Amino acid sequence: MAAETTDKVAQNANAKGDVLATARTAAIQAAKRTADLLPMCQMVAVGTTSVQFHFADTYIEVEVEVHTVDRTGVEMEAMTACTVAALTIYDMCKSGDRSMSIERVKLWEKSGGRSGAWRREIDLDLDEDL
Amino acid sequence: MAAETTDKVAQNANAKGDVLATARTAAIQAAKRTADLLPMCQMVAVGTTSVQFHFADTYIEVEVEVHTVDRTGVEMEAMTACTVAALTIYDMCKSGDRSMSIERVKLWEKSGGRSGAWRREIDLDLDEDL
Amino acid sequence: MAAETTDKVAQNANAKGDVLATARTAAIQAAKRTADLLPMCQMVAVGTTSVQFHFADTYIEVEVEVHTVDRTGVEMEAMTACTVAALTIYDMCKSGDRSMSIERVKLWEKSGGRSGAWRREIDLDLDEDL
Amino acid sequence: MAAETTDKVAQNANAKGDVLATARTAAIQAAKRTADLLPMCQMVAVGTTSVQFHFADTYIEVEVEVHTVDRTGVEMEAMTACTVAALTIYDMCKSGDRSMSIERVKLWEKSGGRSGAWRREIDLDLDEDL
Amino acid sequence: MAAETTDKVAQNANAKGDVLATARTAAIQAAKRTADLLPMCQMVAVGTTSVQFHFADTYIEVEVEVHTVDRTGVEMEAMTACTVAALTIYDMCKSGDRSMSIERVKLWEKSGGRSGAWRREIDLDLDEDL
Amino acid sequence: MAAETTDKVAQNANAKGDVLATARTAAIQAAKRTADLLPMCQMVAVGTTSVQFHFADTYIEVEVEVHTVDRTGVEMEAMTACTVAALTIYDMCKSGDRSMSIERVKLWEKSGGRSGAWRREIDLDLDEDL
Repeated sequence: MAAETTDKVAQNANAKGDVLATARTAAIQAAKRTADLLPMCQMVAVGTTSVQFHFADTYIEVEVEVHTVDRTGVEMEAMTACTVAALTIYDMCKSGDRSMSIERVKLWEKSGGRSGAWRREIDLDLDEDL
Repeated sequence: MAAETTDKVAQNANAKGDVLATARTAAIQAAKRTADLLPMCQMVAVGTTSVQFHFADTYIEVEVEVHTVDRTGVEMEAMTACTVAALTIYDMCKSGDRSMSIERVKLWEKSGGRSGAWRREIDLDLDEDL
Repeated sequence: MAAETTDKVAQNANAKGDVLATARTAAIQAAKRTADLLPMCQMVAVGTTSVQFHFADTYIEVEVEVHTVDRTGVEMEAMTACTVAALTIYDMCKSGDRSMSIERVKLWEKSGGRSGAWRREIDLDLDEDL
Repeated sequence: MAAETTDKVAQNANAKGDVLATARTAAIQAAKRTADLLPMCQMVAVGTTSVQFHFADTYIEVEVEVHTVDRTGVEMEAMTACTVAALTIYDMCKSGDRSMSIERVKLWEKSGGRSGAWRREIDLDLDEDL
Repeated sequence: MAAETTDKVAQNANAKGDVLATARTAAIQAAKRTADLLPMCQMVAVGTTSVQFHFADTYIEVEVEVHTVDRTGVEMEAMTACTVAALTIYDMCKSGDRSMSIERVKLWEKSGGRSGAWRREIDLDLDEDL
Repeated sequence: MAAETTDKVAQNANAKGDVLATARTAAIQAAKRTADLLPMCQMVAVGTTSVQFHFADTYIEVEVEVHTVDRTGVEMEAMTACTVAALTIYDMCKSGDRSMSIERVKLWEKSGGRSGAWRREIDLDLDEDL
């Protein structure tokens, strides 16, 4: 996204309201609705969902962590929350910057569930020229 | 995604069922629920939603087109449908390939709505080394 | 359904509450959610939905009429409301009578929409030996 | 339904898309939303839902099996999934054949839940003259 | 609310239908959707929800009791059900009496959940001059 | 609510996050879901929803304004949004102050819809001893 767009979000100067607070709430709600969106995803009692935003010059990184005490993993809940946060940011910024894109939605780490723990190997190419 | 994963989807050989048909239905349903997911997105009577998949060696491209006769644009509906299709593909393939990511979710073209027509300039860097 | 089950519903003597009032409300709500349930069904602003119940010895007939001022027909809304009313009756009566079934869900008459008016030819075989 | 309609579905030649794949996905989603549709139905963590279609000359039989590890039965989830599959088939075929009806929605077998196991006695009258 | 409005509800003489039965069903459904409405509320398997109405001259008291076997409390589910019952009554009576208000939505008693039991001290000022 | 609770919300010092931003988003989402919550409420394309909070020593006033271009009024949308904002505040503050209550949910003014304009007569008894 344009540096100007990133700045406006960081300074909470978007005309449509508080972008990050809205995106966080949307993400938390989306995590709870994952099974309703993804046909093959089973219902799971989603616990705490935390959403963090990190700013670079021309992008905002969204990091979501979802917990559960249920028997299945919650990686789809985290990825759904993450994309909904990104879509909310896009939606609130699009009148000024339609060239934005959503990139690199991926799982970093999971534990529990039938398939156990998994951790992504470090991705050295994450730079700012997205 | 791994070439092997792409192949399995293309040959409809995924153990969880027909990946593309499921992703298409999920996308169409998601388009209708966009206002329920994105707080600042107004309700709009979504018309026909078409979902196309294009295969490359190591990725599947999802292309969504949404129509409406309503007074607002439906670009958020198209982008939501697109990400939900991608999340559904990820969900159904993840047991074999957790390194997948969702990339380059972006608007290509829109017309209508208060802001009128818009078309993305050609993106020459779309190659297969995602 | 057993004559005893029909009687209990007619006399509002079901242990789980008022069966017909609950089924009517469920049907009205279901009509509004039709596009959310049926993937190829477009969103339409459902207007008044009326739900009537007619009693025979061994079945309850559910008749639903849905109105709209929107541009498309609402026959799927009526049929969805009708089946959800029937499922609600089944759900509230099932502890006493699991042999019930839902039969003859069909469209009687429609007007408007792109396909215009339609009326079912009279169905002479509707008797009570269901 | 007309034999011609059944044929078109069997040959995947319906103009609105893949009828069975869409009906299957709609059924799986509906199973998860049962408590949201039926007022007296308690929330239950629906597990795997399998949907099978069997073809006869003039009807399509829908068979749904729902599993859960939860403490209650899931018969309403199976019946809801079944009717939503049937409604989806109707919706996608109705432009060519409005005389279709949904018939004989019934429980075949259940186990678990407070009321334990139940199995329908064999229904000898299931023939093709529906 | 006006005494005349209360009377009409008590005598089930409202033109829009059975107010209390509709409000009860709406409340039971709302309890199950609480986590979908309140962002910070975790998903919980809501059990039996009972809704009681008590009549005074110029108000209707709504009392909701929600049970669960889940690990968290369900006070938000009870309060959500209670307000949705009140909003439904308002909605069905508003054409005759727009001066109605919703008052004194409060928790009376809870047990279980991480914070344990709690009981409101007696509220001596509950009289009929609302 | 206790003055201490009001203070914490005003200073954005609540442990569960930004109370007002979360309540605002929840209210905006609830306005769009009103017809899904209230059985007799017809679907309407909700437009802009604005949510304002006013602080007194021992209460927070929630003021909601909803616009639409649709043919019906949106007063139920405003009242639903208002109560969901209040329930969200309650939910996020309840661990420290369970004696809170929701009071005086009422319509102030409406225009449009079949019943036309309406304005509440001034309510002189609004003081801080709630």
